[in-house]
Amino acid sequence: MKIQQMAETAKTAGIRLAASDGASRDKALALIAKALRENESEIKTANQRDLHKAQVEHLSAPLLKRLKFDQSKILETCEGLESLRRIPDPVGKTLCATELDTGLELFKVSCPIGVIGVIFESRPDALVQISSLCLKSGNAVLLKGGREAAHTNRALADLISAAARQAGIPDGWIGLMETRTDVQELLGLDHTIDLVIPRGSNAFVKHIMDNTRIPVLGHADGICHVYVDKKADIDMAIRITVDSKCQYVSVCNAAETLLVHKDLAQDFLPGIQSALDARNVEIRGCEQTAGYIDVIPATEKDWQTEYLDNILSIKIVDTLEQAIEHINFYGSGHTDVIVSQDKQRADIFMRLVDTADAMVNCSSRFSDGFRFGLGAEVGISTNKIHARGPVGMEGLMIYQWRLIGNGHIVSDYTGKGSKPFTHKPLQQEYK
Amino acid sequence: MKIQQMAETAKTAGIRLAASDGASRDKALALIAKALRENESEIKTANQRDLHKAQVEHLSAPLLKRLKFDQSKILETCEGLESLRRIPDPVGKTLCATELDTGLELFKVSCPIGVIGVIFESRPDALVQISSLCLKSGNAVLLKGGREAAHTNRALADLISAAARQAGIPDGWIGLMETRTDVQELLGLDHTIDLVIPRGSNAFVKHIMDNTRIPVLGHADGICHVYVDKKADIDMAIRITVDSKCQYVSVCNAAETLLVHKDLAQDFLPGIQSALDARNVEIRGCEQTAGYIDVIPATEKDWQTEYLDNILSIKIVDTLEQAIEHINFYGSGHTDVIVSQDKQRADIFMRLVDTADAMVNCSSRFSDGFRFGLGAEVGISTNKIHARGPVGMEGLMIYQWRLIGNGHIVSDYTGKGSKPFTHKPLQQEYK
Repeated sequence: MKIQQMAETAKTAGIRLAASDGASRDKALALIAKALRENESEIKTANQRDLHKAQVEHLSAPLLKRLKFDQSKILETCEGLESLRRIPDPVGKTLCATELDTGLELFKVSCPIGVIGVIFESRPDALVQISSLCLKSGNAVLLKGGREAAHTNRALADLISAAARQAGIPDGWIGLMETRTDVQELLGLDHTIDLVIPRGSNAFVKHIMDNTRIPVLGHADGICHVYVDKKADIDMAIRITVDSKCQYVSVCNAAETLLVHKDLAQDFLPGIQSALDARNVEIRGCEQTAGYIDVIPATEKDWQTEYLDNILSIKIVDTLEQAIEHINFYGSGHTDVIVSQDKQRADIFMRLVDTADAMVNCSSRFSDGFRFGLGAEVGISTNKIHARGPVGMEGLMIYQWRLIGNGHIVSDYTGKGSKPFTHKPLQQEYK
Repeated sequence: MKIQQMAETAKTAGIRLAASDGASRDKALALIAKALRENESEIKTANQRDLHKAQVEHLSAPLLKRLKFDQSKILETCEGLESLRRIPDPVGKTLCATELDTGLELFKVSCPIGVIGVIFESRPDALVQISSLCLKSGNAVLLKGGREAAHTNRALADLISAAARQAGIPDGWIGLMETRTDVQELLGLDHTIDLVIPRGSNAFVKHIMDNTRIPVLGHADGICHVYVDKKADIDMAIRITVDSKCQYVSVCNAAETLLVHKDLAQDFLPGIQSALDARNVEIRGCEQTAGYIDVIPATEKDWQTEYLDNILSIKIVDTLEQAIEHINFYGSGHTDVIVSQDKQRADIFMRLVDTADAMVNCSSRFSDGFRFGLGAEVGISTNKIHARGPVGMEGLMIYQWRLIGNGHIVSDYTGKGSKPFTHKPLQQEYK
């Protein structure tokens, strides 16, 4: 019940937030940054409690590092808030305008989606980033962070809520969920929550997708491919494969399977083998690959596996078409790369690979909101509706149609002797 | 299994269709129109079989009329194909372009969603309209029409498929489902079908939404409101209320509840009563309404009911805010109207009513793809992601990110001494 109430409050607050002017939302962002700077010691105390508990529970060093929220993290977070504040208000933009008839004008106006549920990993800066993106875009948000960061998240959410209140933002637009039961309850609120964004492990995201009727924006798997075409530059192919696989192995946009055109196999495979050996990457190869280099035999299961580890599967293909078929069958529609000097073949690849991010002669690791220049990232979507690939703030926006008349009725436009519509594009903004 | 195979074939064909050039899709549209004209007698024979069966089964006159597919319907359908053919190709448009660094260019390119499942009502012309919209936009489609139109639909689907094949469109992009079991099977294919568009009764759409993990575009309820503000022109308010309620009672954008500001109740209610009496509309009113005019008492249930009939519920509200709250609580987020001469109050209404189509001083019945100038309508969406309100062809489009480099790797852009991104907007199109 607690979460249902929180969600209903968020819905009401969200509607008022959506109607607020950009200046007050920007003022709130400034006040949040101020509050974070002024309450550094309070935040650090809360974070110390989380860190202490994490040490007692023997969390791994990388997790501890992600959990830490110190002065430099606070400053970095405030810079993020500042740059978000500077970008134009995404709410209330006229996306198109049409005269239907004299004095009957239709406007398509951008507006926030409503109430967003976000479940995110242990980094506490993610809480600030996500809630400020929602605030800027006029969305209410219910957040659930990692259990490890509970005290830090609570401190941050309280500061953000109080600072926004000071700027005149209606209370209740931000809510913090604290347990898994809370999340379970949220997933049932499909009449109140408009969108769920889960960030985390595949299994977790899949669990969310399977247990709610609310639209989910995100991705479960990231089985990404690099295809080395017969027209590839071999040195470039090695460099891109190594970066796609090794630059950060545990993330969704790292490559898991390398497809190699048969004509290049002899020249390319020994080189990539030494490069991957030098990085301690285990190679699992198809039967044909084993004809050129020593590999662990790959099985059907390898083509379906997102290793997120120092393992790469290699398959030799006879044609570009075969590579495309393999990707469309085994891939996640996330990110797939072709290495080829032949523009026409690269073009065929991009058109026929059913993937969110199609790349030519560069690393799969570029698939990321910040690198794409979208600013802060809401997530990466393998959905095929609404938003695809790295999603910035635009993924939190939708539109409302506004039709302004002067007593116009449909009866006049139907049947014999009916008035015609003009359907004339208008240049003006909705004011 | 049959539908699974059909869906997988459609997926493969859809990928090739998405990569086809606009000219061949337009040629296919022209050949479809030609085929319909040249095979008029075959279509009419099939339609006669459906009509005969419908008469034996005592279908109602309006249903029989919708089912009829005669020469004038064929000509009208061909005109629709012709106007669709003339609009610009929506596939492959560069939506934005950014230089990430010298020689590393990112393009966001429009593309079709993939495989669309459409379940529609008994009008056979809907089959031609939907499949041609999918073809133009590069989507594969699996269709299920009304049982009553089975023979006509089969004849039309066969002609469309053959005509498209002649234009070089890959086979299998269009598939016809024929039973409810087929639809049930389709709803389970969330890895193959990208979007389901159900058209039909509330109960039917709700059933679809409740029984699939595939995203659904559409609306179940259409509880639309007309709010007559204290600043309304009374004659205009009567005209708009009558049109919103009576112009076509059985459709989703007809008004079901009339909200009246208390200051205007005395002057407005007698007039609207006689206007509605003249149209045989039953009025169910709140207690306050009963203080002014004779009405059947409205209960809580009335505010939640989409009558789709000659019935209107009336509630008196104390303030604009109360009207907005009522609509946000009981409404479907479909279409809601304010009648007011006060621009500021109308503006508050539009900003705070959480509805797809917010209207000022005009009838709710304008909420429609054709009237909005969107061309053919895919449906009306009460979703808050992807597309909202009347949805034209743009609802069948999404985008792909294309990143073109020259050996660029992420290692060069991370850590100490890393290269910065330029993130410079580019004017050029993806070619």
